[in-house]
Amino acid sequence: MKLIGVDLGGTNIKAALVNEEGQILRLESVKTMVHEGKEEVCRRMADLINDLAGDEKVMVGIGSPGSIDRKNGIVKYANNLPVLSGFALTGEITKLTGFKTFLENDAKAAALGERWFGSARNTENFIVITLGTGVGGGAYTQGHLVVGGQGFGGELGHITVDPHGQMCSCGSRGCLETFASISGMRKRVLSYRQRYPHSRIFEMSGIDFDKGESELKKSGNIGAKEIFEAFEEGDRLATLVVRKFNWGLGIGIGSLVNIFNPEVVILSGGISQASHFFIDEVKQVAAEHTYLSLMGSYDIIPSELKNKAAILGAASVSLERTSS
Amino acid sequence: MKLIGVDLGGTNIKAALVNEEGQILRLESVKTMVHEGKEEVCRRMADLINDLAGDEKVMVGIGSPGSIDRKNGIVKYANNLPVLSGFALTGEITKLTGFKTFLENDAKAAALGERWFGSARNTENFIVITLGTGVGGGAYTQGHLVVGGQGFGGELGHITVDPHGQMCSCGSRGCLETFASISGMRKRVLSYRQRYPHSRIFEMSGIDFDKGESELKKSGNIGAKEIFEAFEEGDRLATLVVRKFNWGLGIGIGSLVNIFNPEVVILSGGISQASHFFIDEVKQVAAEHTYLSLMGSYDIIPSELKNKAAILGAASVSLERTSS
Repeated sequence: MKLIGVDLGGTNIKAALVNEEGQILRLESVKTMVHEGKEEVCRRMADLINDLAGDEKVMVGIGSPGSIDRKNGIVKYANNLPVLSGFALTGEITKLTGFKTFLENDAKAAALGERWFGSARNTENFIVITLGTGVGGGAYTQGHLVVGGQGFGGELGHITVDPHGQMCSCGSRGCLETFASISGMRKRVLSYRQRYPHSRIFEMSGIDFDKGESELKKSGNIGAKEIFEAFEEGDRLATLVVRKFNWGLGIGIGSLVNIFNPEVVILSGGISQASHFFIDEVKQVAAEHTYLSLMGSYDIIPSELKNKAAILGAASVSLERTSS
Repeated sequence: MKLIGVDLGGTNIKAALVNEEGQILRLESVKTMVHEGKEEVCRRMADLINDLAGDEKVMVGIGSPGSIDRKNGIVKYANNLPVLSGFALTGEITKLTGFKTFLENDAKAAALGERWFGSARNTENFIVITLGTGVGGGAYTQGHLVVGGQGFGGELGHITVDPHGQMCSCGSRGCLETFASISGMRKRVLSYRQRYPHSRIFEMSGIDFDKGESELKKSGNIGAKEIFEAFEEGDRLATLVVRKFNWGLGIGIGSLVNIFNPEVVILSGGISQASHFFIDEVKQVAAEHTYLSLMGSYDIIPSELKNKAAILGAASVSLERTSS
């Protein structure tokens, strides 16, 4: 049976028709337009699914940000999609399409994608860390995705890496996300703006602090691309931020390895495509924080699924739930 | 069928005959005497088991320090029991007793003990942290004890709590164990000896630094009892060390909750019996480091098995392995 994976985001809904080997046969995208309300969002998503399915019978998997009620197919809380909070999403999509539909947190879906289609096809013990706007992830141990009692576990981005570190959006301090996400790196870049006002990062982002602090309104322009390109040029602020990234991510991975004894740690999400800039140092820091009997027992690699990780992850949710 | 639990330590071998309800029917103990070699250690253990079993057919579970090869019943590495490293322990015990014998790491056995006989009888999602000379533990998630690919996972004592913290015996820095174990607390006490040479902790431990640094040879006298008694008296050094204990343990629990979404975090091991001194503050620190959607989703409690946790844990290993 063919699959449809839906990557539900605050801005776009991407969906693809995928075969059971993980090949993307067709990919489509529409705007989410949350301001039009949940019924409209669902209608637009259902149209996309029906269009992709054509005459075929498919299974649908949706990867959504936020905390998920798997059993009932409800997005419980999602910062980016408040309009869907508490809404029985999969029921509505099934009603509109007639297809079996399954819901998973997007980062955990990415982990399942690695198991079904990616670098974790032959292991039951692995960790996926999604490095994007935030940090998410999934730990797959002894053949099970760790979700815990209510299904809200696996918040790998919010383990404490440095309790003296930068404040996190979650209200805690020094979470993995403050080191290894775009939002965390951006915040660190900005915190040093008075020391490095002429950093290439600001230049590339169209920000000129000689014009004053009002330039902060453009800080959303600062992304991983600008930071790693400036790093490549030897920019000092970028070097500082990338070193902190390496250090934080390495410590976080070390702790996760001590807990899970995985065979492989897979880095996914947008930043992972810049892994050639950081993976060697991350490996070294991780090894320094790994228990002796676990040293050398795992590898750290970027996802081979690259920018298809999210959509293939979503598609794989239906396979995971219907296999036993 | 009755069970025998064996708590194998560097100094003593304790063993008990236990019924399937977790009642200890008889408890015996012999010296380990590792210097006599592994055959003698096994012979002494087997005699103890045969004596406890009498005419009954039993199943035997052994809780051992160190890294364990569960499948083959081998203690792979154990700091306290180097004589047993790489030795096929369960095979030898079965040969000498005729009983099915199972091996588990002692901290993970304690976790199983909570599931079969203790505070985790009605949950499939819980964490046990053993607070003793070191810190160990077990995470039980969705009905499985997390051990990972080679079975060496679950090293909860070696997750990083503060990367700027005290050196750990494992070679890393600021592991949970450096905050929440007797050895970690003792090291912190000693590191402040020049500031607090007349702390009640030293007095209670028979250490008089007015006689000079040679008193350090008695530092082994400093235990949890001395530290918490001095804390109760308002001793300043003890207060410092207990506050650091609370802070480190709370942060570690916060990270573990974010990963596992457990229903309960059970504190076991010797120090847990002093939990009335610290559990309220540990709960607060943990909550400060828990992801919002997980706040209030768990409790932190001391093990109700108290000083029977290790032996009942060992006994439960056989139940866990023979249930499916």
